[in-house]
Amino acid sequence: MDEKIELDAAKRLAAETAVDQYVTEDTKVLGIGSGSTIVFVVQRLAERVWKEGTLSELICVPSSFQARQLILDHNLTLGDLDRNYKIDVYIDGADEVDSSMVLIKGGGGCLMQEKIVASCAKTVVIVADYTKRSLRLGEQWCKGIPIEVAPLAYVPVKHKIEELFGGEAQLRIALKKAGPIVTDNGNFLLDWRFVAKREYDWNEVNTAITLIPGVLETGLFVNMANKCYFGMANGTLKVQSK
Amino acid sequence: MDEKIELDAAKRLAAETAVDQYVTEDTKVLGIGSGSTIVFVVQRLAERVWKEGTLSELICVPSSFQARQLILDHNLTLGDLDRNYKIDVYIDGADEVDSSMVLIKGGGGCLMQEKIVASCAKTVVIVADYTKRSLRLGEQWCKGIPIEVAPLAYVPVKHKIEELFGGEAQLRIALKKAGPIVTDNGNFLLDWRFVAKREYDWNEVNTAITLIPGVLETGLFVNMANKCYFGMANGTLKVQSK
Repeated sequence: MDEKIELDAAKRLAAETAVDQYVTEDTKVLGIGSGSTIVFVVQRLAERVWKEGTLSELICVPSSFQARQLILDHNLTLGDLDRNYKIDVYIDGADEVDSSMVLIKGGGGCLMQEKIVASCAKTVVIVADYTKRSLRLGEQWCKGIPIEVAPLAYVPVKHKIEELFGGEAQLRIALKKAGPIVTDNGNFLLDWRFVAKREYDWNEVNTAITLIPGVLETGLFVNMANKCYFGMANGTLKVQSK
Repeated sequence: MDEKIELDAAKRLAAETAVDQYVTEDTKVLGIGSGSTIVFVVQRLAERVWKEGTLSELICVPSSFQARQLILDHNLTLGDLDRNYKIDVYIDGADEVDSSMVLIKGGGGCLMQEKIVASCAKTVVIVADYTKRSLRLGEQWCKGIPIEVAPLAYVPVKHKIEELFGGEAQLRIALKKAGPIVTDNGNFLLDWRFVAKREYDWNEVNTAITLIPGVLETGLFVNMANKCYFGMANGTLKVQSK
């Protein structure tokens, strides 16, 4: 329980700092990520809009069902990619961030919409607690790289990934239904546990996996993040920039 | 009407030749493409199975709803990619084939499943009539390159493609429902009319477009076809190999 409090404090610090540094009166369109840290992002936004009376023009574009609900619950202005495809800033969490700011995302299964929204943003800011910060991917996050696949292709895609890059890609099975998790977009997820000791060029891996027919998106975000804020266990903040 | 008869004769010649040259008693798993020429492929297969009493072990893996129906209607053995992801031969049509055997596919909207099945095949054989044969893409096929996209991303993807490579990408609108075509996989299609006079490196274009978040598959098939059979207007056959 103490650890949960410490983690939440770290998440909140990262989230509030990012909102206060990157969201100004000039920010017209803000992309809202998904996951537990984003709850603190939206809470801080709502505070600034409804308590401090600022950011009255701000439009929020969600990256998932969860993000959309958070925007609606806090009575912020909901945007969409049909009208608001030029996004000033995107704030999101990550499952892991390495020393080159390559991200693993998609533990919560929202990787596709997250990457779409991030790709429309001028600036991508990542907020996370200290457990997401690694020198190398896989040091902290042991559940593998999530890969969204067309349901009918999950078996051949699994074999192709394993042949190309080793490790094991497993269909993510649901807890509250029989069979696999189905994403917000109606697809399946493979969690690819890569070989921990192997040196991967993540840009090359991402390109090769994305080009496999049946792969719809990967949870590898390479050259997307511009800044990362990590809340640390001791209450301080670590900042990483490109 | 005369043209329709001529085209059908050309399609039939290409289809029957491909089946007779590439499907043997050693062929365990055959991928079945989609479109008007594939009807003749399946008819010839059924003839060999039910009239000639051959190919009794053959399993057919469909690339679309249409292909699946053709397999069922002709009482052939239906396979799937979960069990039959090692495919010996894939036979499919194309909307256009250039002199390097780059294909445009997806006029019928089945590009994603077609590319998935093709990617599982040792040998990919294309069958088409003479109107599909070009030196350069766009000489014959004027409807653009189909690109399957996540519905929520069609606007940003359209703009990104146009910024990267020029031309115009249009949402494919349905005739028998209001709004856009929805593919067999629940997605939208953009038809990208590229710049006819521009020299494109199609491999590079395919990679760049596939990497745009929200793009699920392109109708550009590069380095996939091993052999093409074209039925010609004069009743002869042209063969193209890599």
